Amino acid sequence: MKALRNQYLLHADDVPTHWYNILADVDVPTTDVRRARSAAAERETGLLAPNIPLSMYRSSVGKDRFVEIPRQVREHYQRWRPTPLFRAHALEQALDTPAHLYYKFEGTNGAGSHKLNSALAQAYFYKNAGVRELTTGTGAGQWGTALAMAAQAFDLDCTAFMVRCSFDQKPYRRVMMELHGARVVPSPSPVTSTGRAVLGSTPDSPGSLAIASSEALEHARSLPGGRYAVGSGENHVLLHQTVIGEEALRQMELAGEFPDVVIAAMGTGSNFAGLAFPFYREKLRSGAATRLVAVEPDACPKLTRGRYAWDYNDVFGTTPMTKMYTLGHTFVPPGMHAGGLRYHGAAPLVSALYERRAIEAVAYGQNAVFEAGTLFARTENLVPAPESAHAVRAAVDEAMRARAERRSTVILFNVSGHGLLDLSAYDQYLAGVLPDHAVSDEQIAASLARLPDADDAGAGS
Amino acid sequence: MKALRNQYLLHADDVPTHWYNILADVDVPTTDVRRARSAAAERETGLLAPNIPLSMYRSSVGKDRFVEIPRQVREHYQRWRPTPLFRAHALEQALDTPAHLYYKFEGTNGAGSHKLNSALAQAYFYKNAGVRELTTGTGAGQWGTALAMAAQAFDLDCTAFMVRCSFDQKPYRRVMMELHGARVVPSPSPVTSTGRAVLGSTPDSPGSLAIASSEALEHARSLPGGRYAVGSGENHVLLHQTVIGEEALRQMELAGEFPDVVIAAMGTGSNFAGLAFPFYREKLRSGAATRLVAVEPDACPKLTRGRYAWDYNDVFGTTPMTKMYTLGHTFVPPGMHAGGLRYHGAAPLVSALYERRAIEAVAYGQNAVFEAGTLFARTENLVPAPESAHAVRAAVDEAMRARAERRSTVILFNVSGHGLLDLSAYDQYLAGVLPDHAVSDEQIAASLARLPDADDAGAGS
Repeated sequence: MKALRNQYLLHADDVPTHWYNILADVDVPTTDVRRARSAAAERETGLLAPNIPLSMYRSSVGKDRFVEIPRQVREHYQRWRPTPLFRAHALEQALDTPAHLYYKFEGTNGAGSHKLNSALAQAYFYKNAGVRELTTGTGAGQWGTALAMAAQAFDLDCTAFMVRCSFDQKPYRRVMMELHGARVVPSPSPVTSTGRAVLGSTPDSPGSLAIASSEALEHARSLPGGRYAVGSGENHVLLHQTVIGEEALRQMELAGEFPDVVIAAMGTGSNFAGLAFPFYREKLRSGAATRLVAVEPDACPKLTRGRYAWDYNDVFGTTPMTKMYTLGHTFVPPGMHAGGLRYHGAAPLVSALYERRAIEAVAYGQNAVFEAGTLFARTENLVPAPESAHAVRAAVDEAMRARAERRSTVILFNVSGHGLLDLSAYDQYLAGVLPDHAVSDEQIAASLARLPDADDAGAGS
Repeated sequence: MKALRNQYLLHADDVPTHWYNILADVDVPTTDVRRARSAAAERETGLLAPNIPLSMYRSSVGKDRFVEIPRQVREHYQRWRPTPLFRAHALEQALDTPAHLYYKFEGTNGAGSHKLNSALAQAYFYKNAGVRELTTGTGAGQWGTALAMAAQAFDLDCTAFMVRCSFDQKPYRRVMMELHGARVVPSPSPVTSTGRAVLGSTPDSPGSLAIASSEALEHARSLPGGRYAVGSGENHVLLHQTVIGEEALRQMELAGEFPDVVIAAMGTGSNFAGLAFPFYREKLRSGAATRLVAVEPDACPKLTRGRYAWDYNDVFGTTPMTKMYTLGHTFVPPGMHAGGLRYHGAAPLVSALYERRAIEAVAYGQNAVFEAGTLFARTENLVPAPESAHAVRAAVDEAMRARAERRSTVILFNVSGHGLLDLSAYDQYLAGVLPDHAVSDEQIAASLARLPDADDAGAGS
């Protein structure tokens, strides 16, 4: 066995100075007409209804290719970034593949996932806009943890409405948020009228992310200086995450290779965009044939089985509509361990790229995902988050295909977070009691039939 | 706020090539006379009774100052080492102290603590000596997790006997071990005669580390090719951990400072030795006045309130005796969250240094420790393991003293692991229900009165 290089590390000085704005390189129909209109009216306060600071909003609808990362945000990034890029030699050996497998690992920060990249940026912009408290709804808890930490760093209050059944089943996530100074409220709660209405009709409701988010939004609106912060989907969130791919570009250069395929798990799209968008730009520049693959769960297959349509972001249909790949805003995916991938739609930017075949998508069931996650843990000695294990599954399949076809392939994937607070899922997998959730064509068709009227909705496009 | 440098990173090529053997620089009475004698008889098998490969044993009783790290072990280290050294600017600001606080963080590997440094080395030596299975007893689970991972890396079987109450209360620790291929047996178990005897008299016994270790030892002896691997105390374990301090020496050089005080939590001593021993050597060389401080819990104060005496390593008095600071092998510390610090004695090497006042010791209660751990999590955004939080407490106190005395001090401490699998302890602290365990003088005196006869025992010194 010869010495193998496993780590490609950069220095804190190498943290990117700019985020990459893909709007400079791809023409995406703006989906924010109504919000852009209300922006003018709100310029005096610096806050955009319902909740986006104008400075943050502007940077994510413009056409500037590179958006400078504010000094204070970059300094926070420098406390743990650049994150490592690893060559997965042990996994390659286990798979007996000629493929070269590289992975970026975003789980090294205290919040344990890539979510902190955007949480810190948002906390900075909200703080500068005079906001005093951030609220959010959280299920799996990765976004809530990151937001709590970021709010604390910028001296903002933070309230997380946590889905009641998660609150009860995932005490460690609750403790993480409380440890970082957040108030965690089990949802449905008596704090909001939405919560009180649900509790009135169903006192023992287990809650849902839709209810929790609705409560968080209502609570934010009720507070002077309160705002609801979202963890994915919006252009600005995808923008913030591009630090992942910018670093990976440099690290692959250090490794002396360029990926043939770039893979990331797909929830709403911030993780996928974070890694893939900078490689999209590099493809355009160099003409490389690199494939960009989004990996979603069988239980929530918005790209592989959804429709590109105007739809709401929330189950109650109260938000502005967005053009996106969607399973319908009333689609309720089965409960599963990759809670971060359960959203019904894909981010507008990711949807637009998928529509024009600039990216690919693939879906997997839970057992296939945890099989790969377990193999990864046993070879690479890092337990991937259930969400991240989706990317591992696709990377393993690409590597096995390379072996079958006897060709070398360079594969880059993102391990967006660690799974140390999700070990019960691995426990169920090892015990052989993890269900695979199939979603029937009928369920999807029924949900798509409840999409808002396309003509009305399409008026803004 | 000016840009602050937080990370001092080395390259994988900078992983130390040698461990540091403090026996070259300090005259410690050998405590291994009986084992050294039996070594000769076992040379043919390469295995030393009861369980130490001769190659590993030799390297830790010799006088060579530097012991080369086997290539395969170093390659494994290079998969995650060098670990980062951080300047704790945020913690300094929170404390408003002129002190410079630096910490080494050993929680970046998949096992989550420094334990992996020795587990990998031991797995390598045992594998080379023809061993096929490693066993251990585990309570808190950090050592068990590291050993499972290391055994898997060197293709060895691994069985961990886990204290029954921990097995029930800490399912995530069990899952981590199983995920890395180990068999985890709740102890007392029907697998061994020790376990069967306990179960016979107490069917619902919650178990203890003494019982679990005894079961692991019996099981190892019953297997052809089985050996019991220990996670601290022995010279070779302390030797393996010195990679921490060797890296920290170089990183402090990068930072352009040399510590006035070096602080680490003290269980049996491998964590403390790992950071402090290389600085001890550097002190000897340069004449620096650096203080080396071991931090133990009030609930198990072997250095601050124990006696330097010959004693057994196990509660049943079956092991060879060792000259060490001890509370007596029958001392049972109160249950507490820093399970890794509950051992009754200090490693012989650490004990010898303490006896000659080359190092200091200080003890803290649980609430003081978790108060500091929480402050650290909230400022540095990393949740320290309960064990590591002891070092944080002492570092915070040194920094506050520096503020009171208006002098700058350079403080280096070790965060030996993360606390993500110990969040229930933080939950209790935040809820204000964490007990402080005082140990009475009477309890210690009674335990010390049961020490083995010093004259008999001292024969080997």
